[in-house]
Amino acid sequence: MHTTLYPLSAAIRAAAAVGGSKETAGPLGAAILADPQNDDRFGTPTWEQAEAELQRRALNAALTRADFSPDDLDLILGGDLLNQCTASAYGLLEFAVPYLGLYGACSTCAEGLFLAAMATSGHAEAAAVVTSSHYAAAERQYRFPLEYGGQRPPTAQWTVTGSGAFIVTPAKAAPAGAPRIVDAMPGRVVEMGVTDANNMGAAMAPAAIDTLTRYFTATHTTAADYDLILTGDLGREGSALLCELMEAESLPIADRHRDCGLLIYDCRADDRHAGGSGCGCSAVVLAAHILPRLERGDLRNILFLATGAMMSPDSVKQGLAIPAIAHLIHLRGGNTK
Amino acid sequence: MHTTLYPLSAAIRAAAAVGGSKETAGPLGAAILADPQNDDRFGTPTWEQAEAELQRRALNAALTRADFSPDDLDLILGGDLLNQCTASAYGLLEFAVPYLGLYGACSTCAEGLFLAAMATSGHAEAAAVVTSSHYAAAERQYRFPLEYGGQRPPTAQWTVTGSGAFIVTPAKAAPAGAPRIVDAMPGRVVEMGVTDANNMGAAMAPAAIDTLTRYFTATHTTAADYDLILTGDLGREGSALLCELMEAESLPIADRHRDCGLLIYDCRADDRHAGGSGCGCSAVVLAAHILPRLERGDLRNILFLATGAMMSPDSVKQGLAIPAIAHLIHLRGGNTK
Repeated sequence: MHTTLYPLSAAIRAAAAVGGSKETAGPLGAAILADPQNDDRFGTPTWEQAEAELQRRALNAALTRADFSPDDLDLILGGDLLNQCTASAYGLLEFAVPYLGLYGACSTCAEGLFLAAMATSGHAEAAAVVTSSHYAAAERQYRFPLEYGGQRPPTAQWTVTGSGAFIVTPAKAAPAGAPRIVDAMPGRVVEMGVTDANNMGAAMAPAAIDTLTRYFTATHTTAADYDLILTGDLGREGSALLCELMEAESLPIADRHRDCGLLIYDCRADDRHAGGSGCGCSAVVLAAHILPRLERGDLRNILFLATGAMMSPDSVKQGLAIPAIAHLIHLRGGNTK
Repeated sequence: MHTTLYPLSAAIRAAAAVGGSKETAGPLGAAILADPQNDDRFGTPTWEQAEAELQRRALNAALTRADFSPDDLDLILGGDLLNQCTASAYGLLEFAVPYLGLYGACSTCAEGLFLAAMATSGHAEAAAVVTSSHYAAAERQYRFPLEYGGQRPPTAQWTVTGSGAFIVTPAKAAPAGAPRIVDAMPGRVVEMGVTDANNMGAAMAPAAIDTLTRYFTATHTTAADYDLILTGDLGREGSALLCELMEAESLPIADRHRDCGLLIYDCRADDRHAGGSGCGCSAVVLAAHILPRLERGDLRNILFLATGAMMSPDSVKQGLAIPAIAHLIHLRGGNTK
């Protein structure tokens, strides 16, 4: 059943999150770098270029925190939601570092951390991971231009305007307090017949269950062994499904489970419907909120499970169900045994 | 200048290429698996699903040649040209193997081989790489639906309908004759101001030059040390630029250089303009034509440099220049020292 576990020996030396106006006004806003103009344009003429600029700023901030220059990086792994991953291609151009483009929809942050940890557990000295999404760019690509004013159903999620960047090094080269990536389990593509692109949580929950049950089998652990099981962007619908179905498998997780899509906004107050989503969602929450808690020792041992819905507007129009994926990264506080 | 070289110890245990009607009628057609109906639909109702089916068939064929079942694979690395990489997500769904989606435009085959070789040089027992493109799906996504009958300029390339799949294992676990991946150098994103989406060769040639010169510097070698320097899909325009500019750098390669985009079609006879392109182009030529020559000993020591133009239709309409990339894989015949 594909329970291969990848033992890794990498650390996240530094991270940074940049976000839009709604993200910096949310519950985690104090830890997210804002656009001074606060108009979600980040000084660019288009939403797409704004997303590229988010990536550029996030990586620059992470490099500064790591006390690194671009020349210290052997690799950048980048991805986003735009067609042909153009936010990454344009946003990361100026760094002139060897670049690997990734596409895992909203799971890309964990896919990048897995590959960066593998690269630095034996092959590279330092790798950066950068992912992003932008609400306005995603709306016009996947749904309608904002000007159209389309109505969104309650199960719809809100694409996070934001980018998270991470500097990954071998564990032995990192400061003692830097969070460790100790192992990982990449996800399989799972498609359970969900065709409603306004309910991506339902499409992604089975992928999260697939990865999490394989992981518990491989490691002989249960939710009780972890302080936190953090999913990427299942939102309210998908999170409820995940907890209910894991309970049905006699692997209850509800008391340890949180979802990045529900942490980034005060969803009921802010009209964000079922929560946040997008390649930027889990990246921003991990960089701004979770890694600092691992550094402080508030959290010691967590599973980060970024989820992705890998349909395109064309595949939805052609009537296909939504393929989804969830990649798992096991993180420990640097000062934790 | 980022001359980090990745020493690797992986082998390509088996490979397979599937192609459309024009590819199987081309100079390499005898080694490319065809659609029995020969209508480029591969038994599906849409061009997009046909591309997914290309990937499914290519991976099945490669698994059969490797005498592997999907359960023998630890990872699949897949990518294509469709928005949100849906050919890979749908085409590789049934294998139920942990999946990492990649986007490097037409460079994706080499990006996948690099990551698969890294994974199997220490972390995994076997990984598959699958990439594809489909002429009709790419035309309507990037340019015009075929029914429109748009005129193509002479510098335009023809998107290959095809998929190549590769089974990568640690070198020590592979049969003696299997071609070896001995090292690799991932590419940097390079953008030299080319805005003409009908001349991707010109946009990609500088990326190929960047990677190749960094590689020659890191290895203290020149073209004379290799039997073949194979680029992915620079086509006629890009190949001429590459050879001319390498000559100007006093690193001549013309007598060793070939391009997959010029090998797959008899371009002048077939009206394929400047040659083939697409994620399927270099994958099909490598799987169908080059790896068998490495196995037979016709070739012993080659550089495979897949190139990609990472614009999207939106970035072109918004007036941005084309960012490009080239990833290098160094291959040796299995029986070669």
